[in-house]
Amino acid sequence: MTAQDYKRIADQFGTPLYIYETERIEENLSNILTFIEYPRIKVYYAAMCNNQSGILKIINYLGLGVQVSSDHELNLAKESGFNSSDISFTSTGISKELMKKLIEEGIEINLDSVEEAEKFCAMISNRTFGIRVRIPKRIKIVSDGATNIFSDSNIGIEEKDFDIIKEIAKKTGNRITGVHGYLASNVHDTKYFIEFGDFLVNVASEFTDLKYVNFSSGFGVKYSEKDKDFNFKRVLHYYSCLMSKLSESFGREIFLKIEPGRTLLADAGSLLVKITNIKTLNPYKSEISVNAGFAELARPKIYDSYHEIENLEKAGKPEKLYDVRGNTVLQNDFLGQDRTLEQVKEGDYLLIRKVGAYGIVMASGFPGKKLPRQILIQKDKTEVL
Amino acid sequence: MTAQDYKRIADQFGTPLYIYETERIEENLSNILTFIEYPRIKVYYAAMCNNQSGILKIINYLGLGVQVSSDHELNLAKESGFNSSDISFTSTGISKELMKKLIEEGIEINLDSVEEAEKFCAMISNRTFGIRVRIPKRIKIVSDGATNIFSDSNIGIEEKDFDIIKEIAKKTGNRITGVHGYLASNVHDTKYFIEFGDFLVNVASEFTDLKYVNFSSGFGVKYSEKDKDFNFKRVLHYYSCLMSKLSESFGREIFLKIEPGRTLLADAGSLLVKITNIKTLNPYKSEISVNAGFAELARPKIYDSYHEIENLEKAGKPEKLYDVRGNTVLQNDFLGQDRTLEQVKEGDYLLIRKVGAYGIVMASGFPGKKLPRQILIQKDKTEVL
Repeated sequence: MTAQDYKRIADQFGTPLYIYETERIEENLSNILTFIEYPRIKVYYAAMCNNQSGILKIINYLGLGVQVSSDHELNLAKESGFNSSDISFTSTGISKELMKKLIEEGIEINLDSVEEAEKFCAMISNRTFGIRVRIPKRIKIVSDGATNIFSDSNIGIEEKDFDIIKEIAKKTGNRITGVHGYLASNVHDTKYFIEFGDFLVNVASEFTDLKYVNFSSGFGVKYSEKDKDFNFKRVLHYYSCLMSKLSESFGREIFLKIEPGRTLLADAGSLLVKITNIKTLNPYKSEISVNAGFAELARPKIYDSYHEIENLEKAGKPEKLYDVRGNTVLQNDFLGQDRTLEQVKEGDYLLIRKVGAYGIVMASGFPGKKLPRQILIQKDKTEVL
Repeated sequence: MTAQDYKRIADQFGTPLYIYETERIEENLSNILTFIEYPRIKVYYAAMCNNQSGILKIINYLGLGVQVSSDHELNLAKESGFNSSDISFTSTGISKELMKKLIEEGIEINLDSVEEAEKFCAMISNRTFGIRVRIPKRIKIVSDGATNIFSDSNIGIEEKDFDIIKEIAKKTGNRITGVHGYLASNVHDTKYFIEFGDFLVNVASEFTDLKYVNFSSGFGVKYSEKDKDFNFKRVLHYYSCLMSKLSESFGREIFLKIEPGRTLLADAGSLLVKITNIKTLNPYKSEISVNAGFAELARPKIYDSYHEIENLEKAGKPEKLYDVRGNTVLQNDFLGQDRTLEQVKEGDYLLIRKVGAYGIVMASGFPGKKLPRQILIQKDKTEVL
């Protein structure tokens, strides 16, 4: 879309406004699929990054499965048209009530603890489940722009407990058919995926009933010019090779599963905002206040994340240095600092880029705001979410 | 309320559930008022900490004014029964549209920039406004549990711009009648308030039309045993003395204004949660998963804040060491770590204390959750918000 298109949308729908472009989601998916040579592949969209029903429907239309992590998200997925067989549930601390529901509805589950496995096996026999494994601390992600890092959490089942969990399953005629691992989110350096893949496949080889290995995701997004394009080719080729070898050793084809979220959605979403005031800080720099901030987009404050900010005016004026902040009472409510933009005026629109993932889902409206509206643009059709 | 009361409420209303007890708000207010000797005092409740309509109605009933920071919050305040004369607006980046509305509705405004003052004065003459002043960097808050700290923001009008702003006002027959300062939130060490008070009153003395000095708030809450009780006596006595001297120098009584939020609401609110799973970490420690986490209460993750966690069972069992986390897919979704609690079991209720301020307003439901319900308990009356 052109700057003119965005301005027209801003005039029509008002701001602040999240805009999702479905075409980008399709392109991002095609891009990922290009690099997977291994034939038995299943892609689950990680709903946590954006679980709006309109988005889930697109994902369903694209033929992907969906990874959900709560009862509410499971309901959203079903309401958006997903069959139970295309839903995978991975989370922590599953209660008896939720476990019962997941079993009854035939949802694939990856369990996070011995205690959950006990709960599962006390309810049902002759069924299958997956386990989420603890990532060893030697795979240590250091300053890579990554979020939701595993270290210092106690997520997953430790290798020392595998025999216990196998015994629990065996006693009840249940089978452990899946191994799931989650590294972190927005990891850029491929070396972590190599270490992680080696570990996961090695662990998976211990489970004789194995049907799938789920590498989850974690693929990084190029938010700023400083980030490299994520090397899907290297990581997905490596996963493919690992899975080919694993399948060979089992004498049957094991499913390779991945759960991208951010890499599908991030650049499909933008936040359209309006300048409400411009404050001169010094002769060289001013501060732009806009009608969105932490209330609508929490990532800059929580993760110190970078999002490109674009002036939609493009009138050929000289450039100037700006801080861009929410027009709120939060003192450090910055969306971006020290940005060079073509000179702006009150009332101009700005576009915050790559906020389709972990944007609206983390928005609280704090301080003192209502949540922003959202629209979905699908070819010539525009839908308010 | 007793543990039995909370358990009964949990059974009746379900969990997770925010519970507010209005009695505590009244007590907290009385406590603060006790220490203000200065007669011309006006207390504005800072709505940003909890702007739920049920809470605003209580605040209105208690006779306080309200400090709002957005158009939406202004509407909430009015809907909750506040008269315009009891509403104060302080924020940043006020747009022309909002400025017009604030002027038309006769809301007291504290302006944050020269540009806002220009906007105000271009719209109206022979009116009054306040200015929010920039806190000098020499008042440097260091590791005090404080949040929303002013340093590195560009909030407020700098002293060097006072002459400009006086000139803008004068030209249009407008008068600068208020000086507003905001230090930070949850500041514990009283020395900062002394420095801040000195600065603010000194600055205020420059404005000949002065009618009020608004010290905003920032008073700390005793969240953990490590925190001291906030020394209201020292701070409010000091403010009173400063204001007496200031009034003397003006030859008329200047209003002392404060804007407490956290200190009124924090311990009036609790979050009632249910244990969904218990995972053994090692022989000495287990991890409790509960049905609330970052989705419902963001402070622990965003500010690394401490909230007391209470086991409502109290069955006389031995104590044990626990981490308490949300039952979500967020790896580090901890509500508390290394807590010693009487031994718990799945299905037990826990109470997260002092979450009445910056609790529900910062809740996003992320990842994958709906926002929790809230109830207000007023003597024998229970109201669902």
